[in-house]
Amino acid sequence: MTQPLYQQIADEYQRIIHSGALKRGDRFPSIRHIMQTQQVSMSTAVQACHVLEDWGLLRAKARAGYFVEDVQAHKQTTSPSAASTATTHPTELPEDWAKRYDGLHQLISQWLAEAEQKPVHIDFMTAVASPSLYPTAQLNRAATSVLRRHPEILTTFARRYGHPKLRAVLARRCAERGMPLEGKAITITHGCIEALNLALRAVCSKGDVVAVESPTFYGVLQALEAQGLQPLEIPTSAEHGISLDALEMALDTQQPPVRAVICMPTLHNPLGCSMSDANKQALVALCKRYQVPLIEDDIYAQTGPEQALGKPAKAWDSDGSVIYCSSLNKVLAPGMRLGWMAAGKWQARVEMLKYSQSRYIDELNQLTAASFMESQAYDRYLLRFQAHLQQLRHCAAQAIERSFGTQVQVIYPSGGMMLWLRLPDDASALELSKRALEQGVLTAPGPMFSSKPRMAHFLRLSYGAVSEAQIENGIRILAQLLPQCRIHATLAKTA
Amino acid sequence: MTQPLYQQIADEYQRIIHSGALKRGDRFPSIRHIMQTQQVSMSTAVQACHVLEDWGLLRAKARAGYFVEDVQAHKQTTSPSAASTATTHPTELPEDWAKRYDGLHQLISQWLAEAEQKPVHIDFMTAVASPSLYPTAQLNRAATSVLRRHPEILTTFARRYGHPKLRAVLARRCAERGMPLEGKAITITHGCIEALNLALRAVCSKGDVVAVESPTFYGVLQALEAQGLQPLEIPTSAEHGISLDALEMALDTQQPPVRAVICMPTLHNPLGCSMSDANKQALVALCKRYQVPLIEDDIYAQTGPEQALGKPAKAWDSDGSVIYCSSLNKVLAPGMRLGWMAAGKWQARVEMLKYSQSRYIDELNQLTAASFMESQAYDRYLLRFQAHLQQLRHCAAQAIERSFGTQVQVIYPSGGMMLWLRLPDDASALELSKRALEQGVLTAPGPMFSSKPRMAHFLRLSYGAVSEAQIENGIRILAQLLPQCRIHATLAKTA
Ligand SMILES: Cc1ncc(COP(=O)(O)O)c(C=O)c1O
Ligand SMILES: Cc1ncc(COP(=O)(O)O)c(C=O)c1O
Repeated sequence: MTQPLYQQIADEYQRIIHSGALKRGDRFPSIRHIMQTQQVSMSTAVQACHVLEDWGLLRAKARAGYFVEDVQAHKQTTSPSAASTATTHPTELPEDWAKRYDGLHQLISQWLAEAEQKPVHIDFMTAVASPSLYPTAQLNRAATSVLRRHPEILTTFARRYGHPKLRAVLARRCAERGMPLEGKAITITHGCIEALNLALRAVCSKGDVVAVESPTFYGVLQALEAQGLQPLEIPTSAEHGISLDALEMALDTQQPPVRAVICMPTLHNPLGCSMSDANKQALVALCKRYQVPLIEDDIYAQTGPEQALGKPAKAWDSDGSVIYCSSLNKVLAPGMRLGWMAAGKWQARVEMLKYSQSRYIDELNQLTAASFMESQAYDRYLLRFQAHLQQLRHCAAQAIERSFGTQVQVIYPSGGMMLWLRLPDDASALELSKRALEQGVLTAPGPMFSSKPRMAHFLRLSYGAVSEAQIENGIRILAQLLPQCRIHATLAKTA
Repeated sequence: MTQPLYQQIADEYQRIIHSGALKRGDRFPSIRHIMQTQQVSMSTAVQACHVLEDWGLLRAKARAGYFVEDVQAHKQTTSPSAASTATTHPTELPEDWAKRYDGLHQLISQWLAEAEQKPVHIDFMTAVASPSLYPTAQLNRAATSVLRRHPEILTTFARRYGHPKLRAVLARRCAERGMPLEGKAITITHGCIEALNLALRAVCSKGDVVAVESPTFYGVLQALEAQGLQPLEIPTSAEHGISLDALEMALDTQQPPVRAVICMPTLHNPLGCSMSDANKQALVALCKRYQVPLIEDDIYAQTGPEQALGKPAKAWDSDGSVIYCSSLNKVLAPGMRLGWMAAGKWQARVEMLKYSQSRYIDELNQLTAASFMESQAYDRYLLRFQAHLQQLRHCAAQAIERSFGTQVQVIYPSGGMMLWLRLPDDASALELSKRALEQGVLTAPGPMFSSKPRMAHFLRLSYGAVSEAQIENGIRILAQLLPQCRIHATLAKTA
């Protein structure tokens, strides 16, 4: 995916600022200067500045142009003592917020914190479905029955690495999807996010480079930064997924070398794309050739029809070098926080890391999930669930069409619970998200999905936890706010 | 606590080996040489070698004396690629075990892994009580009722940072103990171990020095090493707890400086001691004076009578610089894995770290615990629980007296569920633990509680999860094995 011109320019200035050639407080080149040196239009120059401002690298002073902001905030430091000053927005947060989230991906942390302080009426950000779409009553009954059959379950020390019954059921369900596994190859975790964190801790150490898709799930970027790891963004398209050519080049030439690859081959978050089975196989072979562990995040796989999505990449793993991570939080029960992983040759290490970080997982939820998942009711439920999501996706598509017309481009995926909207090139998704939040509509702005000042005019909408009426209203509100968030509306500010 | 002579000598040789002056494969000085240069008896010299061998720093070759083993294994590296070779024991584990647990505290990881591969009949290691001592039936009923009253709890996204009801109940219970807190100052975690890990991540970064008690809970040492932090062991006595003089000196002079202090002022694990309220207050003041955060682990506080144990140190925290960590896994329900912390001025940072590492805690257990803990039944239960533990402690004391006579010294604490046995100076607790494990008796050998080759002749016995008959039998087995684990029995090997 080639970046729009303004993003290329923003990228370039980011490099210059990080190199130290432009320092905090320095006056930033004028719009006119950028137009001349880069040979671009005024609107492109302004847009590039806008992106850098969204990103917290520039600050606009009334009638004085742009000034360089603190860049420490975007470097990888986890020490609270590292020098760091807050960028100016958001003004609502206390003065030292930057320090609070130092090394935890400022932009993501800031947005999560802002979202928490406002009342939210329509939640397009949380990527789960509503309780009515999950097998709520069945799980509740299953839990009651587990409590009856295991009266001491709450006061007995939990089994190591997960309950054998859940591990066995998960293994069987994997085998059905063409990925044969033994129960004892599976480790139960606190959600997929813990699995991803453990995978990274097992194979990397501070300062290492990790290849990620661009864009990628913001949780991955935040985990990387919190562990002091450096993301290397590999171009990823909404049609084919990660570019294998670009990845190969990175594995071949990158210095310091790439230590791990994190990838969502099936129903990518946020793009929604799924790689073909042939490409998944090629991905595994590529990582194996360079002896770099592949961390596969497969969390959305069962939210769409299997025939359209293919197998997990792990199905082609012949020597345990793929670390498979998933959870039941999207597909079965977000209230249980059950995740799991098959860490291949790193399993012993991952399990010891998990022990030292959070010990074992309590068993009530595990047995509840296992007893439902071992039955055929689970298969029937999955089909219903997928159909419900498809219905909501359809509804969202119509609302987008109606409210945005051709201003917005979307590729509709064959599963999952989110859409990746491409707004007009001169729109600021961050601005749009902020204004929408003021009206109680919570979305995930594109810049959260990159560690560079990119994705400025993309927006992720999750539609699983909202009603059809909310989809309709929420999208109308977004469309109404869009014109105020386009660059021509803000040109006056600095030109 | 002054170290016995052989440990001082072992410490010294550890420093020499780590300095690189003695390298892997080098012949270690002969017993005779050690006797001459250090001016000690043969038995002391042999014992020092024995400690270094337990620790994996030396390897005995038949008729050839001692050779230096791999020292990388004891340095702090988290990269699996760092050069590292396994020590020779235990022979049962696969060849690359050292690499597996590289940077995860070899000795602790090795013992945990060994323990898992053997059948255990008498578990003196797991520091919890048996289900019959906990309010098992009451909690089970409470859980069933929560499921009835909150039918969608398993399929609803969990609330951030913990359920308000549990946070409020915990805050009220703290206030009763003289530590006023607001519910919103509390963060719910996956056990106390996650709380400790988050506290460290919030205030330290890789390479930092953290002051710990000596001995200290092995989970702290493992967490430190897994995060690439350096423990600095502060002498700690079974009578008074951590030496405030030694701590002050360390805060004053240590280079690189101490970044955090971790302390268990009440019912220390493994010593069982509790600091006086005056000393707790002095500890808080000391850390505050040096502006170093104090991480307080208070997990055993409610296993003993409050009048004997005093308040938490956090009660004297005036500016949010104490990070308080605890859990319900010892005192209420090990099967729930509920922990919590009050992170003071680091709360926002801790919560974002928790979000990036493991998101939120599922709510069924939280509401179950809250509904029991808000009732007076909880107070009545606590008294019963403490009395039960005291009864078991009494039983263990008698068994030790009967089986060991004066060979073993123990200080009996006023709470908790463990005893710290001082074996004869020439005994190897690691050897004893290994032999006992062969017979199905699992204990925690002293060296797990230090990052230096110390505590060789100490043993921790947890008595909460075993019956009186098991206590009796287990201790008899240990006493029978002891003579084979004293240095004179192994002198022949290398002298
Ligand atoms: C791609 C992806 N991976 C991981 C996660 C985290 O999953 P869990 O909630 O199971 O920790 C999410 C959830 O937002 C996700 O979208
Ligand atoms: C002193 C101490 N802190 C923390 C822990 C870990 O607690 P949890 O099981 O709540 O994670 C333990 C348990 O062994 C302990 O003894």
